[in-house]
Amino acid sequence: MAKLVMIRHGQSEWNALNLFNGWIDTNLSEKGIQQAKDAGDLLAEEGIEFDQAYTSVLTRAITTLHLALHEAGQLYVPEVKSWRLNERHYGALQGQNKAEAAEKWGDEQVHIWRRSYDVLPPLLDSYEETMTVQGKDYPAFDRRYADVPYGDLPLGENLKVTLERVLPFWYSNIAKDLQAGKNVVIAAHGNSLRALAKHIEGISDDDILNLEIANGQPIVYDLAEDLSINSKKTLSK
Amino acid sequence: MAKLVMIRHGQSEWNALNLFNGWIDTNLSEKGIQQAKDAGDLLAEEGIEFDQAYTSVLTRAITTLHLALHEAGQLYVPEVKSWRLNERHYGALQGQNKAEAAEKWGDEQVHIWRRSYDVLPPLLDSYEETMTVQGKDYPAFDRRYADVPYGDLPLGENLKVTLERVLPFWYSNIAKDLQAGKNVVIAAHGNSLRALAKHIEGISDDDILNLEIANGQPIVYDLAEDLSINSKKTLSK
Repeated sequence: MAKLVMIRHGQSEWNALNLFNGWIDTNLSEKGIQQAKDAGDLLAEEGIEFDQAYTSVLTRAITTLHLALHEAGQLYVPEVKSWRLNERHYGALQGQNKAEAAEKWGDEQVHIWRRSYDVLPPLLDSYEETMTVQGKDYPAFDRRYADVPYGDLPLGENLKVTLERVLPFWYSNIAKDLQAGKNVVIAAHGNSLRALAKHIEGISDDDILNLEIANGQPIVYDLAEDLSINSKKTLSK
Repeated sequence: MAKLVMIRHGQSEWNALNLFNGWIDTNLSEKGIQQAKDAGDLLAEEGIEFDQAYTSVLTRAITTLHLALHEAGQLYVPEVKSWRLNERHYGALQGQNKAEAAEKWGDEQVHIWRRSYDVLPPLLDSYEETMTVQGKDYPAFDRRYADVPYGDLPLGENLKVTLERVLPFWYSNIAKDLQAGKNVVIAAHGNSLRALAKHIEGISDDDILNLEIANGQPIVYDLAEDLSINSKKTLSK
C-alpha cells in the first residue's frame, strides 16, 4: 500500500488574468501562494510522510511543491522535475485572453478546444516562435528543454496527447515508486493531472471532460500494490 | 571549463538567536530570506546558466537554493539533496546559546571547538537523543536520514570529519558534473562549504581556520577540466 497525492498548482498570475497559460512560465499570484501553503497545511493534518516528490519544469508547479512541502515540514523529500508533467501545451492559444479568443474564433470553437478530448488547438508554427504578452516576450521553448529529443516537443496538445507524453514518466518513475510502497506527491497542472487521473481511475474519454481539479486541493489516493484504488479523497479547507 | 557556485544559506532563525545550529532543522529569518533573494539577483546579473543544483537536507539551505534560483529565473534546474552537504554536526553543543556555552566551558574551550580543524565537540550520547530549545523538542535525527547507513551518521564533527563525509558526494556527483562541463550551484552551509573550498583550493589545515564564508554571497569558481582553478570571485551587493 502506498499513497499518491496530486496537487494542482495554486492560481498563477495568468490564471488571474484569464490568459491561456500552457507551457509559458508564469509565477503564482498572491492567492496562488496562499493556496499552495494551505495545501501543505492539509497534508500536515493528514499526517502523510512522503518518500518522493515530482513536479513539472514550470515555476508555478515547482513553487507550489516547495511551499506545500515547507509548510508540511518535509522540504527535504527528494524531488524530480520532468517536462512530461507540464501543463497541456495550448499551441497558438498560449498567451491569448480567453474572452478575446472566444470573440475571434467563436464561443463554440474555443469551448471545443478547451474541453474536447482529442481535438487539437491551433498549433505553433515552430519551436522558435515567441509571443509578446503585456509587453514581455515569451519564447515557446527555452534551455530547460535542451535535453528533450527535438521531435518529442509539442507544438500544441489536446488532453489525449498530453496523456500520451505523461504516461512514459508515470511508468518510468511514479508507478515504480508506488509499487515499492513509497508515498509520492506530484505537484503539477490541471491537465497533466486530469490525464493521470484518467489513467489511474480508468475514466472514459467522455467522462474525463467532467473532471475538474481545483487549485491547491490535494487529491489523496490510497493504492494497492497493483495500483488499484483502495480509496480516494480530496482535501480542502 | 565549468562554473561552480557555492552559496552559504541566508541567516537562520537560530543564527539570529546566537544558538549552535548544526543539524537541527531551522528556518531562514526574514533577513536570511532577503539574503537568499539577493544571491539570486547577483547570479542573474552574472548571467550564469546552471545545469545542476545541489543542496543539503536542511530547510535553511534548501530554501536558500529555491529562493535564489527563482530570483534568477532558473527554478527548473534539476536538484539533488544530500545529507553529506549538511552543516557540520555540532554534537551536544547543538541548540546551546554560544554565549552561555562560553560561560559553562570557558571562552577558550568554546573557541577551540569552533575554530580548530580536528578537535571534536562534546558528542551526543546516541542517535535517539532529543533536545529542547525554547520549549520545542528537536530530535537529533529523523526520517530524512532513514536511508543513511547507521554507522555513517555522526554524533558530533570537527571540520576534518565534515570534509571526510562531504568528499564522497563531491566525487560521486559534483566533480563528475563539472568535468562534463556542467555549471553547478551548491547551496549549503558555512562549514560544509569551507570543507569543500579547502579541498578545491588546496588550503592547509592551518589556513582554513581563517576562511569565512558570508551568508548569501555566491562564490564563483571558474574551473578547468582537471578542476584546477582559473579564477575565483565572490559576488556581493
